[in-house]
Amino acid sequence: MCGIFGVYGHPEASNLAYLGLHAQQHRGQESAGISASDGQRQRTWRGMGLVVDVFNQERLKHLPGRAAIGHVRYSTAGDSDLANAQPFAVRHGRGQLAVAHNGNLVNAAALRREMEQRGSIFTSTADTEVIVHLLARRQERRLVERVRAVIGEIRGAYSLVLLTERALVATRDPWGFRPLALGRLRRPDGGEAWVFASETSAFDLINATYVRPVRPGEIIVVDRNGLHSFEGLPAEQPHFCVFEHIYFARPDSMLGDSSVYESRDLLGRQLAREQPVSADIVIPVPDSGTTAALGFARESAIPFGMGLIRSHYVGRTFIEPQESIRHFGVRLKLAPVRHLIDGKRVCVVDDSLVRGTTSRKIVTMLRQAGAREVHLRISAPPTRHPCFYGIDTPSYEELIAAQKTPAEIAEYIGCDTLGYLSLEGMLGALGQRRGAFFCDACFSGEYPVAADPPTPARALRTAARR
Amino acid sequence: MCGIFGVYGHPEASNLAYLGLHAQQHRGQESAGISASDGQRQRTWRGMGLVVDVFNQERLKHLPGRAAIGHVRYSTAGDSDLANAQPFAVRHGRGQLAVAHNGNLVNAAALRREMEQRGSIFTSTADTEVIVHLLARRQERRLVERVRAVIGEIRGAYSLVLLTERALVATRDPWGFRPLALGRLRRPDGGEAWVFASETSAFDLINATYVRPVRPGEIIVVDRNGLHSFEGLPAEQPHFCVFEHIYFARPDSMLGDSSVYESRDLLGRQLAREQPVSADIVIPVPDSGTTAALGFARESAIPFGMGLIRSHYVGRTFIEPQESIRHFGVRLKLAPVRHLIDGKRVCVVDDSLVRGTTSRKIVTMLRQAGAREVHLRISAPPTRHPCFYGIDTPSYEELIAAQKTPAEIAEYIGCDTLGYLSLEGMLGALGQRRGAFFCDACFSGEYPVAADPPTPARALRTAARR
Amino acid sequence: MCGIFGVYGHPEASNLAYLGLHAQQHRGQESAGISASDGQRQRTWRGMGLVVDVFNQERLKHLPGRAAIGHVRYSTAGDSDLANAQPFAVRHGRGQLAVAHNGNLVNAAALRREMEQRGSIFTSTADTEVIVHLLARRQERRLVERVRAVIGEIRGAYSLVLLTERALVATRDPWGFRPLALGRLRRPDGGEAWVFASETSAFDLINATYVRPVRPGEIIVVDRNGLHSFEGLPAEQPHFCVFEHIYFARPDSMLGDSSVYESRDLLGRQLAREQPVSADIVIPVPDSGTTAALGFARESAIPFGMGLIRSHYVGRTFIEPQESIRHFGVRLKLAPVRHLIDGKRVCVVDDSLVRGTTSRKIVTMLRQAGAREVHLRISAPPTRHPCFYGIDTPSYEELIAAQKTPAEIAEYIGCDTLGYLSLEGMLGALGQRRGAFFCDACFSGEYPVAADPPTPARALRTAARR
Amino acid sequence: MCGIFGVYGHPEASNLAYLGLHAQQHRGQESAGISASDGQRQRTWRGMGLVVDVFNQERLKHLPGRAAIGHVRYSTAGDSDLANAQPFAVRHGRGQLAVAHNGNLVNAAALRREMEQRGSIFTSTADTEVIVHLLARRQERRLVERVRAVIGEIRGAYSLVLLTERALVATRDPWGFRPLALGRLRRPDGGEAWVFASETSAFDLINATYVRPVRPGEIIVVDRNGLHSFEGLPAEQPHFCVFEHIYFARPDSMLGDSSVYESRDLLGRQLAREQPVSADIVIPVPDSGTTAALGFARESAIPFGMGLIRSHYVGRTFIEPQESIRHFGVRLKLAPVRHLIDGKRVCVVDDSLVRGTTSRKIVTMLRQAGAREVHLRISAPPTRHPCFYGIDTPSYEELIAAQKTPAEIAEYIGCDTLGYLSLEGMLGALGQRRGAFFCDACFSGEYPVAADPPTPARALRTAARR
Repeated sequence: MCGIFGVYGHPEASNLAYLGLHAQQHRGQESAGISASDGQRQRTWRGMGLVVDVFNQERLKHLPGRAAIGHVRYSTAGDSDLANAQPFAVRHGRGQLAVAHNGNLVNAAALRREMEQRGSIFTSTADTEVIVHLLARRQERRLVERVRAVIGEIRGAYSLVLLTERALVATRDPWGFRPLALGRLRRPDGGEAWVFASETSAFDLINATYVRPVRPGEIIVVDRNGLHSFEGLPAEQPHFCVFEHIYFARPDSMLGDSSVYESRDLLGRQLAREQPVSADIVIPVPDSGTTAALGFARESAIPFGMGLIRSHYVGRTFIEPQESIRHFGVRLKLAPVRHLIDGKRVCVVDDSLVRGTTSRKIVTMLRQAGAREVHLRISAPPTRHPCFYGIDTPSYEELIAAQKTPAEIAEYIGCDTLGYLSLEGMLGALGQRRGAFFCDACFSGEYPVAADPPTPARALRTAARR
Repeated sequence: MCGIFGVYGHPEASNLAYLGLHAQQHRGQESAGISASDGQRQRTWRGMGLVVDVFNQERLKHLPGRAAIGHVRYSTAGDSDLANAQPFAVRHGRGQLAVAHNGNLVNAAALRREMEQRGSIFTSTADTEVIVHLLARRQERRLVERVRAVIGEIRGAYSLVLLTERALVATRDPWGFRPLALGRLRRPDGGEAWVFASETSAFDLINATYVRPVRPGEIIVVDRNGLHSFEGLPAEQPHFCVFEHIYFARPDSMLGDSSVYESRDLLGRQLAREQPVSADIVIPVPDSGTTAALGFARESAIPFGMGLIRSHYVGRTFIEPQESIRHFGVRLKLAPVRHLIDGKRVCVVDDSLVRGTTSRKIVTMLRQAGAREVHLRISAPPTRHPCFYGIDTPSYEELIAAQKTPAEIAEYIGCDTLGYLSLEGMLGALGQRRGAFFCDACFSGEYPVAADPPTPARALRTAARR
Repeated sequence: MCGIFGVYGHPEASNLAYLGLHAQQHRGQESAGISASDGQRQRTWRGMGLVVDVFNQERLKHLPGRAAIGHVRYSTAGDSDLANAQPFAVRHGRGQLAVAHNGNLVNAAALRREMEQRGSIFTSTADTEVIVHLLARRQERRLVERVRAVIGEIRGAYSLVLLTERALVATRDPWGFRPLALGRLRRPDGGEAWVFASETSAFDLINATYVRPVRPGEIIVVDRNGLHSFEGLPAEQPHFCVFEHIYFARPDSMLGDSSVYESRDLLGRQLAREQPVSADIVIPVPDSGTTAALGFARESAIPFGMGLIRSHYVGRTFIEPQESIRHFGVRLKLAPVRHLIDGKRVCVVDDSLVRGTTSRKIVTMLRQAGAREVHLRISAPPTRHPCFYGIDTPSYEELIAAQKTPAEIAEYIGCDTLGYLSLEGMLGALGQRRGAFFCDACFSGEYPVAADPPTPARALRTAARR
Repeated sequence: MCGIFGVYGHPEASNLAYLGLHAQQHRGQESAGISASDGQRQRTWRGMGLVVDVFNQERLKHLPGRAAIGHVRYSTAGDSDLANAQPFAVRHGRGQLAVAHNGNLVNAAALRREMEQRGSIFTSTADTEVIVHLLARRQERRLVERVRAVIGEIRGAYSLVLLTERALVATRDPWGFRPLALGRLRRPDGGEAWVFASETSAFDLINATYVRPVRPGEIIVVDRNGLHSFEGLPAEQPHFCVFEHIYFARPDSMLGDSSVYESRDLLGRQLAREQPVSADIVIPVPDSGTTAALGFARESAIPFGMGLIRSHYVGRTFIEPQESIRHFGVRLKLAPVRHLIDGKRVCVVDDSLVRGTTSRKIVTMLRQAGAREVHLRISAPPTRHPCFYGIDTPSYEELIAAQKTPAEIAEYIGCDTLGYLSLEGMLGALGQRRGAFFCDACFSGEYPVAADPPTPARALRTAARR
């Protein structure tokens, strides 16, 4: 639940990183950072807040060079601190190194303990620092060999971009949990630069062309000799995070060969087939539910309307750090259009249902606006299990679907009917057999990579939330 | 192009004003302010920026009392200064007075000149200061009489809320150019408070009930004796600003008895009838074009898709103060969904076309995303004339429809076809005969109230923009 | 208790104002402001805080022109608001006008009431706004005549600089309560600019030459025809504020023909003669007591030492707005040098004794540092009366010398002996007979100009302090 | 050129650290930080700027516990970055650790290289990180043994305070280059807390009692078993930094058994004997030259005056990071008192002469103020060599006394005569034989501990300055 970016071979590398992070701002709003290399020296600037708050032209000028990486970070309670902002940048035996990381290692705590036993020190609680430590102590001569050795030591979900004074490396875990795309960008002088991003929306903004995803287990090195692909680890059975399609990615992004917009449209259509409803109007919970609601309306032939208006002056519900603001935020963020709702049987479509608190408020709001019936449809299965691969889902205690049956949930939320998409329906809509191409652990509880005992950081976050 | 709010008779008056302004933030983002009265003393706080930036709980605590008014202000080039923030608050012969004003007086410059000749001083360039001066020098004993006398002196568009130590007054010009709604709010103690707002969206957020619009020419006084309505000036032929329906108001607001959402839906449907198109998909320019695009798609039976994704991390195009940011803003703000556009004949629906620069960029963006054809449809007639009643439209030189024919505009913008809604179609869709109920001067050039020679302030703004 | 500055005829007028205010920062730290005129248009920027915080090169660039005035404002409880920052700048019948004012009018409340009755509005609580109102309603053709008419209406202490689009005016009340100096500055092109400042320290920083004080009752107009002096009001018996010599002005400034440094040296010498002491060391309360302590030590032939070290990281005691900070401030600000004090009979010299709270803490601190005896000597008489002419002294209730005898004060403070300078001694040391050249009302209670009933603003401040 | 502080056993540990750092603010103004331990967990907050800017009550509340350490850091060009702010706080194999360090290691670069070869990573350029790494990899069971082992590995100047979850450690290099004092503080409950500070001025502010210096080579451990002193390394021939007496420390501090005030007084007296002058007045360059000037004046029987007034609104010359500000700063900071100077033969006393640029401006300023002759006297020998032990002196190229003879310097500066104190005179005045108790390497070039080749950080700084 972070966004990363990398560029190699362009005179305005840090400006491109700035734009590439801005286009991925929805992936994390707590901190932003950029490291740039000019062939001799690497410089880093990081700060708390949005990309536009952390950087300005003055600061970008102080990040010269033709290669850069960047990171936007999602906030989790308990570690909202600048020390955890990325890229994580250090000096070590071979010079300078900066790493931007999206994902979650399942053996980070064990690796950290082991290294601490051997005398290493840690200035942050981020997994990234573990990776940097591992890289720094490898003795292999070639950078790609050191990276290959390190990805042999870490386990879990990761998409990484890594910058030295002279090279950029991108790699992805063998299961391909988290996205990482490769693109190409024409330079003013006619030459070509290479770009990497969590989402292709970053490429569109800077007029780069999407080439292909970085492959699970692949290591790509870009330096003055050009771009070279290496086999890092043999690819495992792919397990791309299905939640990226459902909620997290922007609808204009491509994930592999799939359009996120199309995925959501298909999920909405399948939902309409599985969970039909007699209603006068279909409305989305904007913006994340809009595409699925359009698919649902089309498939069910029920008129579609924007029955909830979203304010542009507050952030994304799911992504706010404090419980109190989140609750207050629902009312500040969404407003019902009485004209569409009053006296109507309303079907409201949302992308997921995690704690249930937001949905409950929305149903109340719709009833106050005159809805005769409120039918809630979720374009995903019940979220019953926490994620250990980088999505900041709550613990079992807070996941309403882990605690209640759908009927109990409907009662809690106050809707007339509640319908989830089935696991099979979801996977079928996305064109895959179950377990084959997606990680659906948050729905199925089938974790492709066994998790360590909770790390102190995760335990801390959980504690802080209670 | 401002938002105003007032509340009388509630122990949390300034908190309600805060929320009421937040719900009208789309009406102005440059400055925000609240004045509150505790029956003895009036206090004011104003600042540059969004409501959430200007106020916090600490500051609201320093605005005690059961009555409050508030204002959000739109920025116009050349007068982005705290001195112009509202409410405009003063001490005068009868105590304290604060005024929040939405609109534009056509005789402000003349009144100002006349008062200056007589020795008055002005600390801002706002029309509001003229109104406050007029109020201060009236000798009538009763507040309502002083207000009545003053609205006999000013001419133009205004909706006002006015606060003394002990009373709240709301009034509206005889033509009813700008909106002002009256609502009712149940207090915790079971009693009732009265609220006023430019848009009813403010009432929904605070759970107030919309009662009716303040009538053109009406003066409403609320004090400890309750709410009383007075005839201020005899109502003229109504001329409510049609642009509020087309673009400015939030779709969840009611303007008089009309739902803004419904208005835009009807405009989109009429546009589809007048300007049919052969296209594979209808997409809106979000968010202001979305409702009309949905109506257009329904009427034309062409599939609808959210082909342009709007970033939540940049503000509204039309409403940014600096030309350079506005241009850069289009790319940062809107991103095409290639999946929906590539290889398609795309019909893009927007609410209005003012300078043409944004539309041109959008068409280019859609072609780069693979659109085979791009057809632009505008759910309003060509904007050919500046507004003198409070909407910050550009001068004739910058209004593309005042300078070019539709064919020339289409060529400039680069679309395959361009279709505007007719003036008759617009008025018909909104259920009115021409000139009867709306001010459509920006389209027709028929100004219901003759404008003075440009005021220094407006001339200044125009100059600053060139 | 403010500092003002003016310059006419220099291409870097606002930069000079910036420096001139910085050199007078000790006269007021709450707000700072500059108005500049380019011959056609006047622009103003004001802000809360120090000159260096309010202004930067960017902002000074937006204040072009060859004439400028500036103001630093001292904070008084209850009106710490930007609306009270100066220069007070307005548009009126003859164009633009900005005024910076040091002093206090005794008939401001009456004038304000009268103008309010006649319909005027006031946006601040500052006397300056009264002056601007009076100026704006005068009908005389020439600026100097309008100024002359206005100074005929106001009574009290004032030194003013006033800027129009094309002229600068400086004037001073007929008693000459507050300082205002005239200087000359060579321009880069060889021509000459005229400068005005409360203190000549401003001239030294910008390499200007001190010419003479503006005379009591004089009006000086500078415009493209050069500098012209007019008789405004016939000068009264001079009553220059003696407290400027004792405490307020910088020691490197000239007040009239007198060096402030010399004045304080002479006061210290006279104090040594009047209030001799048997002590091992003389130490000052730095910085305001340093010069008098040096004089005391020289005259008494007792060794001098810097027995109290002043921190550079906190502000001036007397000039902080909040009581709590002031008290905590004594310990943060001053530190005893044990080496000089331990086992010694210490004579500590301060410039004045107002509330007694600071002195009490100092005596305690010195005893904790080992002082065997502590003798307090004050280089001024007991402060027994409040000031109505612009120095923010506390009310009678808080003036310790208005409530207690010297013996009681010594007991409260905890010193072994306490000695004040006599009124006659003070005036003699400053080379004057009693009442002849100085206002000594804060010591003698003889007010040269009768005060109105307290203004609301002053009453408010007094109330706020209790 | 930093200040450190530590406290163990007091319920308001972080508040005391805040005050203790404030009292040492003169030792570093670039960044400030505090780490506090509550027996279980350690928390750290660091920020750029002054202590009062970095901390407020809210932040101090988030640093609970009965033990705390703090640091203020001086800025050196090229590494003005938050990553270099202290305390340096990490997690390692035995828990949490924070270190605050004053000094400079001569083998830091070598240790860093060696650790980097073995795979360690460095996030800052500070020597402190080297020390933390060394501590983390020690395997000894007891904390004191680990500290002892580490100080066996590092060489150079250091005074350290170190905090774990449950213990505080203070230690000092065997030469005793940099100061570190031990004090005792009575708790509200009658018990006793232990405090450590670079300067005893910190003790005075918090009402602690100075006990003794931490001895060279000593390790003091404070935990729930009380305070215990251990021999770390055998003490070498003492080499306490003489520049602390001359310039760096506050005059109210004790360094060992010596009063800094007394030291400066004696240096000024010896200077008067060695370099007599025929002058009408002796004036200091305030504040650092004031005490020596008083001694000079007393010894020479020439009258003393405060001929240069220092502004309270700008920082200390020597300690600003940017060359341009430093130069401009001289005029903004010091103002001549013409009354004392005009027509006089002026002897101006300063504590040291490093680059000569400030002195040159002062001489010019005095001549402009009318000085007939200007005689410069320096209460230290010529500064001819850079410091490798923690004072940020410039390189040989910039040290004017390394490049020019005294006669040439006098000519450059523009004074009539220039007189330095002799090395022997300085050491004699301070009561020591040459080389016996002081490090005087900056004057003599005799470095007690051989320096490594310049570290990259120092080379960087030097490069950045050119």
